[in-house]
Amino acid sequence: MTTDTPTTLPLGSRADYLVGSVIDSSTSLLAKQTHDIVRFAMGSPAAEAIPTEQLGEAARTGLTGADAFDYAATEGDPPLRTALLEMLEGTTDATTDERLTITAGGMQGLDLAAKLFIDPGDLVTVESPTYTNGSATALAYQAELAEIEVDEDGMSIDALRVAVDRAGRTPKLIYTVPTFQNPSGTSMSLARRQELLELARGWGSVVLDDDPYGMLRFAGDPVPSLHELADGDPLVFSVRTFSKIIAPGLRVGWVDADPSLGQLLIHAKQSMDTCTNLPAQRMVAEFLRAGHLEEHLATQRLEYRRRKEAMQEALTEHLSGRATWTDPEGGFFLWVSFGTGLDTEALFETALADGVAYIPGNAFSPGRRFPHDLRLCFASTPPDRIREGVARLARAVDAVEAR
Amino acid sequence: MTTDTPTTLPLGSRADYLVGSVIDSSTSLLAKQTHDIVRFAMGSPAAEAIPTEQLGEAARTGLTGADAFDYAATEGDPPLRTALLEMLEGTTDATTDERLTITAGGMQGLDLAAKLFIDPGDLVTVESPTYTNGSATALAYQAELAEIEVDEDGMSIDALRVAVDRAGRTPKLIYTVPTFQNPSGTSMSLARRQELLELARGWGSVVLDDDPYGMLRFAGDPVPSLHELADGDPLVFSVRTFSKIIAPGLRVGWVDADPSLGQLLIHAKQSMDTCTNLPAQRMVAEFLRAGHLEEHLATQRLEYRRRKEAMQEALTEHLSGRATWTDPEGGFFLWVSFGTGLDTEALFETALADGVAYIPGNAFSPGRRFPHDLRLCFASTPPDRIREGVARLARAVDAVEAR
Repeated sequence: MTTDTPTTLPLGSRADYLVGSVIDSSTSLLAKQTHDIVRFAMGSPAAEAIPTEQLGEAARTGLTGADAFDYAATEGDPPLRTALLEMLEGTTDATTDERLTITAGGMQGLDLAAKLFIDPGDLVTVESPTYTNGSATALAYQAELAEIEVDEDGMSIDALRVAVDRAGRTPKLIYTVPTFQNPSGTSMSLARRQELLELARGWGSVVLDDDPYGMLRFAGDPVPSLHELADGDPLVFSVRTFSKIIAPGLRVGWVDADPSLGQLLIHAKQSMDTCTNLPAQRMVAEFLRAGHLEEHLATQRLEYRRRKEAMQEALTEHLSGRATWTDPEGGFFLWVSFGTGLDTEALFETALADGVAYIPGNAFSPGRRFPHDLRLCFASTPPDRIREGVARLARAVDAVEAR
Repeated sequence: MTTDTPTTLPLGSRADYLVGSVIDSSTSLLAKQTHDIVRFAMGSPAAEAIPTEQLGEAARTGLTGADAFDYAATEGDPPLRTALLEMLEGTTDATTDERLTITAGGMQGLDLAAKLFIDPGDLVTVESPTYTNGSATALAYQAELAEIEVDEDGMSIDALRVAVDRAGRTPKLIYTVPTFQNPSGTSMSLARRQELLELARGWGSVVLDDDPYGMLRFAGDPVPSLHELADGDPLVFSVRTFSKIIAPGLRVGWVDADPSLGQLLIHAKQSMDTCTNLPAQRMVAEFLRAGHLEEHLATQRLEYRRRKEAMQEALTEHLSGRATWTDPEGGFFLWVSFGTGLDTEALFETALADGVAYIPGNAFSPGRRFPHDLRLCFASTPPDRIREGVARLARAVDAVEAR
């Protein structure tokens, strides 16, 4: 049968829209390196930030009966739903049972939103720079993407208006990571959040509120989430995850959406993975029930602040006057912008050889608008290694600029 | 904001195609019952068939370091990939590393196939009766479904030819559960498998080979899988899962597809869930590495045969002459057909009140072609309870027919 096989498969038109993530290809590249590298590239929590012992204990407690390994309810396992509702009480993401669907991480929440709302050719706005894997999900549903500038106050609402005027049609979805944005580290101001909701209401656009880092604030004053500000407006579709606050490998997150979408979400999820894996749901529920989260978050916030400060100090020491960078009040990332002279994709190879890894700015823009920028993750590296890594980065910049 | 909210959300055209599964709504209904019910409805392994202790041990051994909770490689965690390749050696599903993608259960494999191949309006053939959740996945991509009759030798290739002639175009995907089919319990004969591959090659159609039960043969002679018969033909896309042979709640399965699809599968999966949950991958890998699978399968096969025989005997005792049923050589299900007199959807309520649950035939047919049939799962109920359940079913039939 191998001699007369067709050379091409009958792929759907969507196949052209399934783009690879530079983040993931960088992971693969990094996995192959054997020399010492300070890894500012990935957005994983630090290994020491994963509550391994408590999760192990949760496995011992929660994974005893056969029912822990059976199919789960598609909307999520009741013990987790209960523990989650309790965990959210009093926070800016407080919600009610009928709004919740447990998902396979935040990414499945984005996939569900795209699946429910996007028809091929629909306009979807993404931030510029944007979280690549999030915008890739919209692209996988053959959306037309428009990039909306992000500054120190988050997504620019003026730029959003201009883009929509230029497109001559309203967006189906407005995709945003409003708090400690990936990759810029900046947060949308309260005024802009309110303005965004106002605009979305006028346009009938869905606001895809992807907020994985909101609970990791280590400085500044809290800003209400888009979920809270929406106050039940069905146009806000909120995606959350335990990936950054407990562990990403569990693949447990949740969608908080209008109850009128509940059945559709269940139907859509049934045809995607039947249900979220139950052992991980039980482990998260046990972790929450045992009351570990609050202390865990307090520890992480302190540590991430130390790391952010170490990175800022090192950047000031080594790159002052040659680059600017954002000053995040939480989350994992900051964004470094060089003058127009430096190509951060070209720099990557030298930097990697010099023992430091980052993600080039163009990875965060479908239109490749950030050739002179890069993203650094400060969260996964201890302060002394951060100082070493930034020094290596500065040496790589020197070397490339000297050519 | 609640006063002026829009009453409708801007759903995509796909929303009309996201259908609920009767199987899942039956689960919810069943979960609410408090009286004694013999449950022939669901397709879960028996609670006593879940290797709880060995999985607990796998959790203790495999979930120790932080790396067990980090993001996994999108294509799957290397230890699981290695253990899986070894497990498949010498079986009808033997394969090579570059053909494998680890998925969130078999369902994600079906979702990936649909995502890669289906454009709205494409013709997809499904079996009649079909595995509902599988055909729902094709429907979620707005395929046009054609139902192809299944008999005691599996999907009828003559019926497939006729349907394609009638449609006036070739199918993009031919969806089949060739072995111990869900819901009929019958298997496609070797001759039909060969004929199917021949036809698919001529048409350039992808054969979506969904075979979750193939390793659970307890009678009759083995038949090569479509994967094996295809001998590397890129048109065969095989979906497999650990759900029925270890535990469904783990949500770990795999796709075995042409290596030319590898990158596309990774890109598609990245935008669906980033990666399959890592703790479950580690647990399955540990379970396999410890050598538990072979003995576990041997035990299950013996037990499932006992249960199937108990069900056949009870059906003969209670329903001879009033219904016919299939005689599966493996898997979980058999299919009962009443004469044209009995409405199995109307029967359901009476049966449930009498303490027995099943899935009505129409749940397995988009065109609702099976009003007088029903699916029974023999795998999850011990023999004495099976006898009691079939007696209750017969009493319910009596009661409905006496009206």
